[in-house]
Amino acid sequence: MRLLQVTDPAKVLEIIDTHFYPLPAETVPLEEAGGRCLAEPLRAREDIPGFDRSTVDGYALAARDTFGAQEGLPAILNCTGEVLMGRPAPSIAAGQCCLIHTGGMLPAGADAVIMLEDTETMGEMVYAYRQVAPGENVIHRGEDIQKGSTILPAGRRLRAPELGLLASLGMTEVPVHRQPVMGILSSGDELVPHHTAALAPGQIRDTNTPALSYLGRQYGARVIAGGILRDEYSEFLERSRALLEQVDFLILSGGSSVGSRDHTARALQEMGEPGLLVEGVAIQPGKPTLLASCGGKPVLGLPGHPVSALNIFLVFGTAILYRLSGRTRPDFSPSVPAFLTRNVPSRSGRTDYVRVKLSRSGDKWQATPVFGRSGMLRTLAEADGLIIIPPAKEGLAQGEAVEVYPLD
Amino acid sequence: MRLLQVTDPAKVLEIIDTHFYPLPAETVPLEEAGGRCLAEPLRAREDIPGFDRSTVDGYALAARDTFGAQEGLPAILNCTGEVLMGRPAPSIAAGQCCLIHTGGMLPAGADAVIMLEDTETMGEMVYAYRQVAPGENVIHRGEDIQKGSTILPAGRRLRAPELGLLASLGMTEVPVHRQPVMGILSSGDELVPHHTAALAPGQIRDTNTPALSYLGRQYGARVIAGGILRDEYSEFLERSRALLEQVDFLILSGGSSVGSRDHTARALQEMGEPGLLVEGVAIQPGKPTLLASCGGKPVLGLPGHPVSALNIFLVFGTAILYRLSGRTRPDFSPSVPAFLTRNVPSRSGRTDYVRVKLSRSGDKWQATPVFGRSGMLRTLAEADGLIIIPPAKEGLAQGEAVEVYPLD
Repeated sequence: MRLLQVTDPAKVLEIIDTHFYPLPAETVPLEEAGGRCLAEPLRAREDIPGFDRSTVDGYALAARDTFGAQEGLPAILNCTGEVLMGRPAPSIAAGQCCLIHTGGMLPAGADAVIMLEDTETMGEMVYAYRQVAPGENVIHRGEDIQKGSTILPAGRRLRAPELGLLASLGMTEVPVHRQPVMGILSSGDELVPHHTAALAPGQIRDTNTPALSYLGRQYGARVIAGGILRDEYSEFLERSRALLEQVDFLILSGGSSVGSRDHTARALQEMGEPGLLVEGVAIQPGKPTLLASCGGKPVLGLPGHPVSALNIFLVFGTAILYRLSGRTRPDFSPSVPAFLTRNVPSRSGRTDYVRVKLSRSGDKWQATPVFGRSGMLRTLAEADGLIIIPPAKEGLAQGEAVEVYPLD
Repeated sequence: MRLLQVTDPAKVLEIIDTHFYPLPAETVPLEEAGGRCLAEPLRAREDIPGFDRSTVDGYALAARDTFGAQEGLPAILNCTGEVLMGRPAPSIAAGQCCLIHTGGMLPAGADAVIMLEDTETMGEMVYAYRQVAPGENVIHRGEDIQKGSTILPAGRRLRAPELGLLASLGMTEVPVHRQPVMGILSSGDELVPHHTAALAPGQIRDTNTPALSYLGRQYGARVIAGGILRDEYSEFLERSRALLEQVDFLILSGGSSVGSRDHTARALQEMGEPGLLVEGVAIQPGKPTLLASCGGKPVLGLPGHPVSALNIFLVFGTAILYRLSGRTRPDFSPSVPAFLTRNVPSRSGRTDYVRVKLSRSGDKWQATPVFGRSGMLRTLAEADGLIIIPPAKEGLAQGEAVEVYPLD
């Protein structure tokens, strides 16, 4: 029996970044660009705001007309009208002012706005009870964004603020990296489609296809589920090849037997150059993970155990999707700080992912490991998240502070 | 000028949970159930696994036939064949064994599996070099899930592990709460649709519609964007009413002027009972937030400033969507622990949401506030996340430990 050459998880992430590249650019409407990553830096084609605007409700005026004004000695101005929202502002002369609303366009001749509460009106006369400085309560043209400046770098994922920013500039079409298409094939003679009503003895339903399809979509992919492969090598290879041609990233969710794993490893070598890159990872659960580059496309061979398969997809499958999407992998992973309620053993030299449930204890969170064999989906469904035990540690002690990474 | 009656953010969340309810149940195919919440608890209709299975590659046998076996004194068994994956297992008699793969069905007559590496074969003879206990390397029928047991509670959001679990049981249709339909109307005479190519003086593009549409979909809603309302009350009311009829949750993204805000407040009182519930929140940015229940449907009046609007949507809009979806609001919010690079002032008595950028400093994260006026989307696009300063605190000091909540 050949021993696995296991690779460190951090090294696998490096291999992913070295061997695979962002997909080509395409232009999509802004409405469909959310979550996608910019294929090139974007420059502003306009100033934002496009005109000097008031930041308060008040009177637009020339600041110098208020110099020296105070509680007992107001400056008196002549109100010539109102700035209507969305309309060009009328201009004012010295000694005049104009009613203006938040966001309204500053009239020519005005350089500041006095707030309503600092004034009183008597007919067309406005009494200003304090002095304002030039520029006070005004946001100037181009103050948020200057025309020609770079507003977003290449690789930036478009979240709600970025979409708002692009919308404010009238950018209706956005250059983004193409959305990855992810293919999934499950293999194993014991597997039947999950919608099979009655199982024959020895059969089990394929759970990886529906679970991984959902995760793939969550992480930005379009998913093609290719069905179930029998443990017959020539058919296995032919159908894997056929699906690989249609996708950017192929997942072979292995059967749990050695034979089925051998088929996957062999197919990963034969589907294209350079072939196998990783043939085992120092990780638990999920050690028998395979990664290949077949003609430049990533192919991930997942362990058949559903819990291992989901764990490996979350660690490496998402990294592959991020890479293909052109996204810089977020350096930060949000987590929930918690305390362990019991000891957790771990073997030194490998990275352990431990399923935990979160519960409240006073104003702290406590994390309780969910025990059970690795194949059991129930243990994963009961877990709120995962804690990671690095290779240098031999387990964690009760009461130790841990970071819990929520499960999607 | 009437003073706002501001409500504490925690109280607003309470009001949301008290006044609104999960939407009715519907049945959807498993493939579309990801992210939805169960409308009722689910029971298992089968045992999982459905038969005793091997957890290793080895030989299925009766444990008692190996009792006393050791390195120099193997037990000798007669191998009668192989358990084929997905097929009923043949039965064995005393003194016999059967080759079995991981996941294979245990033959009648066997109660344990010895691993391949603990054996040697000579023709049809298998030498077992250690003794195994009854049940060793076997997962028993029903050990993961027992038929009739409750596998998932009502309100549980269906993540990948839950989908896998349901698939393993052959559950192809799932009872979930209906997906919320969220309507968005922007108001303000200065607003034009974001796809407007050239702006006239005083006009700005509506950025809240595209940004909030994306966020609404991210948080599980189907979104109807109703366009832009003029600051003319009867049209404002009529169009708000018409959209409210089509949706489960209406967002009125207010113009920035006092007049436009007054229209929103008035409409929220007139669209249905009981009307306004919240007319200002002790939060920054986003104080002039309105919340109403109009005939039992939530209507949220957002401030016009894009940064305030997005902040309020993330704090309260998402809570409303969770409530309608039947989801128990996650008690835990994942965050990134960091240290502040400078002092951040804050007013006591209100909750401040401060935009920060994250950067690496050794093995720690440091959070640097992104300064700029509240209306500026650029400051939000530059931010990686938000830190929350509770009402009891008057600012945070440089070097202080903070939790950064990532921005979607």
